[in-house]
Amino acid sequence: MSLIQPRTLKGFRDYLPAVMIPREQLMQTAREVFRSFGFAPIDTPTLEHLEILTGKGSEETDRQIYRFTDNGGRDVGMRFDLTVPLARFAAQHIGSLGVPFKRYHIAPVWRGEKPQEGRYREFVQCDFDTIGTESVLADIEAVAVINRLLETIGFDRFTISINNRAILTGLLEHLDLADRSVAVLRSLDKLEKIGRKKTADEMISAAGVTSEQADAVLQLADCTGEADSVFATLTQISGGNETAMTGIARLRDIYEGSLASGVPKQRLRLDVSIARGLDYYTGVIFETTLDDLPTIGSVCSGGRYDNLAGLYTKQHLPGIGASLGLDRLIAAMEQLNLLPTASTPAPVLVTYFDKDHRDDYLRLAHQLRSAGIAVEVYPEPRKLGAQLKYADAHGFTIAIIAGGTEWAEGECQLKVLATKQSEQVAYTHDHPSALVDRVAQLLAPSGDGA
Amino acid sequence: MSLIQPRTLKGFRDYLPAVMIPREQLMQTAREVFRSFGFAPIDTPTLEHLEILTGKGSEETDRQIYRFTDNGGRDVGMRFDLTVPLARFAAQHIGSLGVPFKRYHIAPVWRGEKPQEGRYREFVQCDFDTIGTESVLADIEAVAVINRLLETIGFDRFTISINNRAILTGLLEHLDLADRSVAVLRSLDKLEKIGRKKTADEMISAAGVTSEQADAVLQLADCTGEADSVFATLTQISGGNETAMTGIARLRDIYEGSLASGVPKQRLRLDVSIARGLDYYTGVIFETTLDDLPTIGSVCSGGRYDNLAGLYTKQHLPGIGASLGLDRLIAAMEQLNLLPTASTPAPVLVTYFDKDHRDDYLRLAHQLRSAGIAVEVYPEPRKLGAQLKYADAHGFTIAIIAGGTEWAEGECQLKVLATKQSEQVAYTHDHPSALVDRVAQLLAPSGDGA
Repeated sequence: MSLIQPRTLKGFRDYLPAVMIPREQLMQTAREVFRSFGFAPIDTPTLEHLEILTGKGSEETDRQIYRFTDNGGRDVGMRFDLTVPLARFAAQHIGSLGVPFKRYHIAPVWRGEKPQEGRYREFVQCDFDTIGTESVLADIEAVAVINRLLETIGFDRFTISINNRAILTGLLEHLDLADRSVAVLRSLDKLEKIGRKKTADEMISAAGVTSEQADAVLQLADCTGEADSVFATLTQISGGNETAMTGIARLRDIYEGSLASGVPKQRLRLDVSIARGLDYYTGVIFETTLDDLPTIGSVCSGGRYDNLAGLYTKQHLPGIGASLGLDRLIAAMEQLNLLPTASTPAPVLVTYFDKDHRDDYLRLAHQLRSAGIAVEVYPEPRKLGAQLKYADAHGFTIAIIAGGTEWAEGECQLKVLATKQSEQVAYTHDHPSALVDRVAQLLAPSGDGA
Repeated sequence: MSLIQPRTLKGFRDYLPAVMIPREQLMQTAREVFRSFGFAPIDTPTLEHLEILTGKGSEETDRQIYRFTDNGGRDVGMRFDLTVPLARFAAQHIGSLGVPFKRYHIAPVWRGEKPQEGRYREFVQCDFDTIGTESVLADIEAVAVINRLLETIGFDRFTISINNRAILTGLLEHLDLADRSVAVLRSLDKLEKIGRKKTADEMISAAGVTSEQADAVLQLADCTGEADSVFATLTQISGGNETAMTGIARLRDIYEGSLASGVPKQRLRLDVSIARGLDYYTGVIFETTLDDLPTIGSVCSGGRYDNLAGLYTKQHLPGIGASLGLDRLIAAMEQLNLLPTASTPAPVLVTYFDKDHRDDYLRLAHQLRSAGIAVEVYPEPRKLGAQLKYADAHGFTIAIIAGGTEWAEGECQLKVLATKQSEQVAYTHDHPSALVDRVAQLLAPSGDGA
């Protein structure tokens, strides 16, 4: 029989242990942070009726949907994001769940786009949202969640940029550009990429604004720095427009509430030039950048929207949420050497080279595990050298070595693999605590347990 | 614009928080147990080349595969289990990963089967396997993992039934039935369901054995009880057949090694009549039943197989693994009242009813969270009654209540929702510890913290 070539589809990938271990850790950290704010997990089906999915994103996302007709003749599609399923879910269940409804959802999505470096056709999204309230407290909380997420994952130097779309809207009203807001915002979105001069040119040519109007809009880019001065400048350039004033007051609330929620001041940045797309967000908007890797782009973005599920229900459901960019974060952690390199989740390898003592190795491993220490027992009584090579290759921290002599004398050898230092520790099945304690000490974050 | 009806596909379901919270907990427990034995996580794509998936299970699973042609003209399918992707993965990566390779994989699979009560077209599988070793230590470890899984999830009374297929093979050799083993085993598999008499009849009619041969095979069903007597009976009825004797010795090793690995004796049952399917397993087989709910069937099953990936590689990859039945376990936990009923992952609700103190509520919540306590802040300054109703409906344990008076006097009210008992506790932002300590005390497993 000829063999089938083992291969993955173009644009898809396997996650091997060395990559999957930190991914799983990251997802678990995210879950714990979400839960610590009272967000609850949900899950939705991978497949939805096609009519639920199409016409929700752009024409491009429609084209990218994996779609087919199932055996029952139904037109179905694989979800391309977690927002459309959330909208469908909320429309269907909000009556029984009630509002406010706070959920997180960590799950894969599929897009048949052209694969590129670092872009795959299957990737995991990690979203949290608060639905059914317009309260600024939910906006503040979203900032606090982002701060805690990044902090708990292990970042210290990052910046959460905050804006309120209402300020832009008010400024455009003040400049008599309300009817051209889409075109103006589309240009403004490119500011960071193409620079001030080109952005102004584009606004003039594409949105048909005067060069004075373009200058006035681009003053927004100067509104950074100390909060009080930003708010003062904003008030001035928007000429007291009511929409803008309400927007500024809310942005101030979010800023101050974030500080009260424990977000360090140096991580908060008011940036009234960020717009994040054109239609979806209506209020506060966030982006999060890593100070040591700004070029990687935003690792957690989101904002407030007016009405989540208008396509499926008449119930008005405002909300706020954000999405953690797992793949980007992993890439960043790799570049910043923040990723563990082990391909084993257990730090301790019990070597097995005296066949007659198989059950002794098993008992020893059980005792360590009962003390909360993850332990692998090498499965075959091979030569010690081969087992230590295995331990090194997989990134174990400690190898425990015991042969006939050690068993007879009631001790084990502990070998710290990084330093190659060994020590003898007393051990019998009836008195395991010296060994258990010493292993725990060696594994403690302080390092050598000294 | 007319609304689109929000609905899920037939055979698919949404997981709401009250269901998803325990599911996530269960999956997290499984991950921790797998890791504590050195099993590492992997993930594989949802979609595979169709040729990878078809012809691997039965004709029925082939029919059930969700399949389509993608935009690139490739024939693709959604995985219907985690074993076929593991085989493809191993064939592709084992060269770089090396053996022994220990992995777990928790992920959804899809089967277009007729939906029934409790059966869905999308469900999560939870598998662990050790690949590339024939050592009995890996067999023993699988039993120890199953024991620890069930124990950590919260079960005390369960039974792990163990068999070694080699004993059956040896017995059939001894009875000159080696050429009819498939038909005999197919009948034997029904023993528990249809009883001894009907099983014997079927063996005679379908496998063409004599009634003496059927009786001899069915003696296996009597081989239960104390290990030593089981092994003695087995030795006797298999007439010293070499395959059977080797199989018995290995089963004894697994039994004794499991005890050494901390599996309590009363949870182990030797049951040489279980066969679990016909072709795949070649050595040890397990099934796990809950003593208080035996009718629910096996909640964790598996066994040893000869060669995992023969369709994709010439490399011989023996292995052993098992699969935890998540949905069955959840159903069992529900029946045994082992499931939490809250639909919030946070036990504490900070009510918010004095608008002027918004940032004070936020700061208080931040302080509790920093002490590791999960806290939700009600997002709007609604009437206290409505907020307490929300707290009750979602299963919060404690509500924290503070109005203008409390803030002025430097205290908060703690309300334990189940008992409706309230107490005043000192609290200011600069001295939060009395409150933090008391909340932690009330949330401790001991109950009222007395």
